[in-house]
Amino acid sequence: MIKVALDAMGGDHAPKAIVEGAILAAKESQGKYVIVLTGPEDVVKSTLSSFGYNGEGMEIVHAPDLVAMDDSPTAVLKTKPNSGLVACVSLQKAGKVQASISAGNSGAMMAACLMILGRVGNMPRPAIACDVPSFGQKVTLLDCGANVDEKAPTLVAFGICGSIYSETMLGRKNPKVGLLNMGEEEKKGTEVLQEAHQLLKQAPINFIGNVEGRDIMKGEADVIVTGGYTGNVVLKLMEGFYEYHLKTFGKIDSPEGKQFHMDWDYANFGAAMLLGLKGTGLITHGRANAKVIKNGLDLAYRLASNQVSEKIAAKLSQVA
Amino acid sequence: MIKVALDAMGGDHAPKAIVEGAILAAKESQGKYVIVLTGPEDVVKSTLSSFGYNGEGMEIVHAPDLVAMDDSPTAVLKTKPNSGLVACVSLQKAGKVQASISAGNSGAMMAACLMILGRVGNMPRPAIACDVPSFGQKVTLLDCGANVDEKAPTLVAFGICGSIYSETMLGRKNPKVGLLNMGEEEKKGTEVLQEAHQLLKQAPINFIGNVEGRDIMKGEADVIVTGGYTGNVVLKLMEGFYEYHLKTFGKIDSPEGKQFHMDWDYANFGAAMLLGLKGTGLITHGRANAKVIKNGLDLAYRLASNQVSEKIAAKLSQVA
Repeated sequence: MIKVALDAMGGDHAPKAIVEGAILAAKESQGKYVIVLTGPEDVVKSTLSSFGYNGEGMEIVHAPDLVAMDDSPTAVLKTKPNSGLVACVSLQKAGKVQASISAGNSGAMMAACLMILGRVGNMPRPAIACDVPSFGQKVTLLDCGANVDEKAPTLVAFGICGSIYSETMLGRKNPKVGLLNMGEEEKKGTEVLQEAHQLLKQAPINFIGNVEGRDIMKGEADVIVTGGYTGNVVLKLMEGFYEYHLKTFGKIDSPEGKQFHMDWDYANFGAAMLLGLKGTGLITHGRANAKVIKNGLDLAYRLASNQVSEKIAAKLSQVA
Repeated sequence: MIKVALDAMGGDHAPKAIVEGAILAAKESQGKYVIVLTGPEDVVKSTLSSFGYNGEGMEIVHAPDLVAMDDSPTAVLKTKPNSGLVACVSLQKAGKVQASISAGNSGAMMAACLMILGRVGNMPRPAIACDVPSFGQKVTLLDCGANVDEKAPTLVAFGICGSIYSETMLGRKNPKVGLLNMGEEEKKGTEVLQEAHQLLKQAPINFIGNVEGRDIMKGEADVIVTGGYTGNVVLKLMEGFYEYHLKTFGKIDSPEGKQFHMDWDYANFGAAMLLGLKGTGLITHGRANAKVIKNGLDLAYRLASNQVSEKIAAKLSQVA
């Protein structure tokens, strides 16, 4: 039985929204997986009680330390090992759970996953991968902000991670991987992008060449590779666009409008995946509500049960 | 009297849309400036005739060579000096016009401006600056794709160019300049961004610190500085949003909808400015229609009459 550990105390609306999300997931999944809530036992129990839930399909692991959103990641690892955030990762290292998720301090969660679980391949840090809206179907964008100043082989590793995720989890056959660039020609872009283009042509993936900013919206690629800086800007610009749209037009109630809100409301994205770990780690928006947490738990379960991290490790070891 | 040279043969819809745009501008500007059309004289004349226009407010400079959209920029400079594209820049160098604009091969136009007019300050190439939609008011984004692998002082020069443009042309008082980054903290982002952050704090501009992707849409900064790669991705992603929106919702006819289409339709952006030149150069979308050309001509005239390039050169020489 797969178990997913959830940091009960992470996020702006913790523990209420987190525990509520866990309850939604437990009810819906009907015992397909177990949710392990990490946090101060009394707080977690009383929050469960406040929803009138008996805790079916859940376990609680007592972790009383509290992590603030602005705590330094390294300080969290050193001084708060018994926090919900660090405990949800340590349990995975100990083999007691198969995936870990937090809506808390994302730098600290990244550091915990990196230091406790470890990484695979030649990425300095695992890539943050997100499924973002595109025309017709979502596209997987990575890295959305874990790395900076990547070298070309790291971008190739992102492409491999994204390709395996897209094939395994989204069912895309031979996923099309594009390199985000400022022109279609091979010689466009930074030195690193030009080198990455050549390496991607040799990589064991379906590389379709450079794609541009406007192509993100066209659904022509299944996976789009870029560095953490640009990926982070793109992801947040898309969130900004949705906020702008809501401010301008409000909720649009037509069938197209409903689809648009479903595709663009980042509450529906679930969570960002850390790909390239020896294990399964996810981070969600600090503003996560119960629905985000429920979607994140489901995604964590599916990543673990589909052995996505193992498949990525195997493929990366072939090319290293 | 200010004269603006326009490459009559540049762009997907040349010469028809270009000449039509020139006629619109000439009629509307009522003699405030002269438009110099560069291209094969017979073609330009017959196109003017096809619109029943007598050529008032215009001059024609014969330039028979034709530049293709995929010609190599350096080859264009060497082998097609007597093209509409190169001629509109050479006339400026000779002091016969005060600004140059082309909707043709943008790499060739950049090369012509750089090699014939020359650059100022420590930018390897002039920055491409665009006014992009934001909430409430437009924001000036640069560089949108002229440079790659910028060093930190180049990003500072972008900030100075953008600040002078915003103050002189958009009337913003003490324009707020933000550095596009992946977090608010000084220590976020690539090594170059971290160094640029420190240098921008010392620069003679109103630096407001890091801004993130979502802030582009919030109108909190007047000028947003980033490297050419990321800026190009942002600009094209915004074009992609608009296309996605049109496909999803069509034209929205409410007052908010009309404002949205006005703000987001890149036909209304006019043209991209090359800031950091010894002179005034503009490039427009290859798909430019008559309205884009008219807006671009007006912008070119205002840039020249407000001596934006001279002000930028003076300020950059202070900090170099």
